[in-house]
Amino acid sequence: MKLYTYFRSSAAYRVRIALALKGLSWTPEPVHMLRGGGEQHAPGYSAIHPQRLVPVLEDKGELLIQSIAICEYLEETHPTPPLLPADPFARAYVRSIANAIACEIHPLNNLRVLNYVTSTLGHSDEERTAWISHWIADGFAALEAIIAEAELSGRFSYGDTPGLAEAFLVPQIYNARRFHCDMSAYPTLTRIDGNCSERPEFRIAHPDAQVDANAA
Amino acid sequence: MKLYTYFRSSAAYRVRIALALKGLSWTPEPVHMLRGGGEQHAPGYSAIHPQRLVPVLEDKGELLIQSIAICEYLEETHPTPPLLPADPFARAYVRSIANAIACEIHPLNNLRVLNYVTSTLGHSDEERTAWISHWIADGFAALEAIIAEAELSGRFSYGDTPGLAEAFLVPQIYNARRFHCDMSAYPTLTRIDGNCSERPEFRIAHPDAQVDANAA
Repeated sequence: MKLYTYFRSSAAYRVRIALALKGLSWTPEPVHMLRGGGEQHAPGYSAIHPQRLVPVLEDKGELLIQSIAICEYLEETHPTPPLLPADPFARAYVRSIANAIACEIHPLNNLRVLNYVTSTLGHSDEERTAWISHWIADGFAALEAIIAEAELSGRFSYGDTPGLAEAFLVPQIYNARRFHCDMSAYPTLTRIDGNCSERPEFRIAHPDAQVDANAA
Repeated sequence: MKLYTYFRSSAAYRVRIALALKGLSWTPEPVHMLRGGGEQHAPGYSAIHPQRLVPVLEDKGELLIQSIAICEYLEETHPTPPLLPADPFARAYVRSIANAIACEIHPLNNLRVLNYVTSTLGHSDEERTAWISHWIADGFAALEAIIAEAELSGRFSYGDTPGLAEAFLVPQIYNARRFHCDMSAYPTLTRIDGNCSERPEFRIAHPDAQVDANAA
């Protein structure tokens, strides 16, 4: 398998965690999203991803896009170890954590959206930071409540094994820290993130451990 | 099953289509997101949805949130008729269409985001409209390319049966038309939407057909 990835991309980071949790090996195809105006804008890249985003997983000659769809594909084609629990309600709970991040937080703090806020709408770096912090705080407050009240969490969002929820949560917390967001209001999220950081699957998926990390 | 819904909510509309395609009956619990400042801000509603959003599906006493997680739950608990094809790559393709809408387009044009753009950032109605149109055009251009090039589409995104892709596509096109977006550049999306509009499952899920449609 080949992964079109950028070390700091939150969506690529999710897929790297999912691949590591499944114990799957892959070859990186780095797409530097800032260098030279962004390698995703190269003429040929729209044939890889029509929206010029990462990640793209290439498997058996097919190109798969969208981190949620890629993770569900990995779960269905390599079911062991599972990223989702067996119980239907527990599966919905775990997916809702991943979705709340992928659909309510991350899309607002994407590079292209931040560029629109500063370049097209003409806002300052301070207003950009306030925008980022607002949506992370809004989403994390909900997630903290969802996970803390679910009575399903142990060391992780669901029991004592990390899975799909952690594959989405850890990259979003990494982003929040990069933007200096105050994490003190989210003790459950912080505790889960700390438990993940002790595991090799999360270490090898971390932005700093990627081949393209030094090309920044 | 009970659905906390708002007739114009794009995310609730997706779940209404999924329920209709599965032939499942449900009781509406309308949450008017504008009236009286928004019924989702009522004190008790955070216990239903910590982020005060719709939809919420109540099934067997459990509350399920996030439209993607709810649709996957319905697919797993009521597999016939399926919302997803059987082939793993085709499943990833259909999910990527739904995800591109749920993760790249809709989150930017959510009510709470538009309120931030106008109230907190102080932009005009014209700039608000430009913001909406920009993200819809960006996302639809990619979707048009993905579906037209996939060689999987027939009357719908995948073959001749509507499914998960259409449950997400039709509400987003409804939104685009509400905001007077030019749809002429997306002939494949428009054709699929037209084919959906002929089917009873899409008619009963339409905003205008909801019990709360006249309470606007």
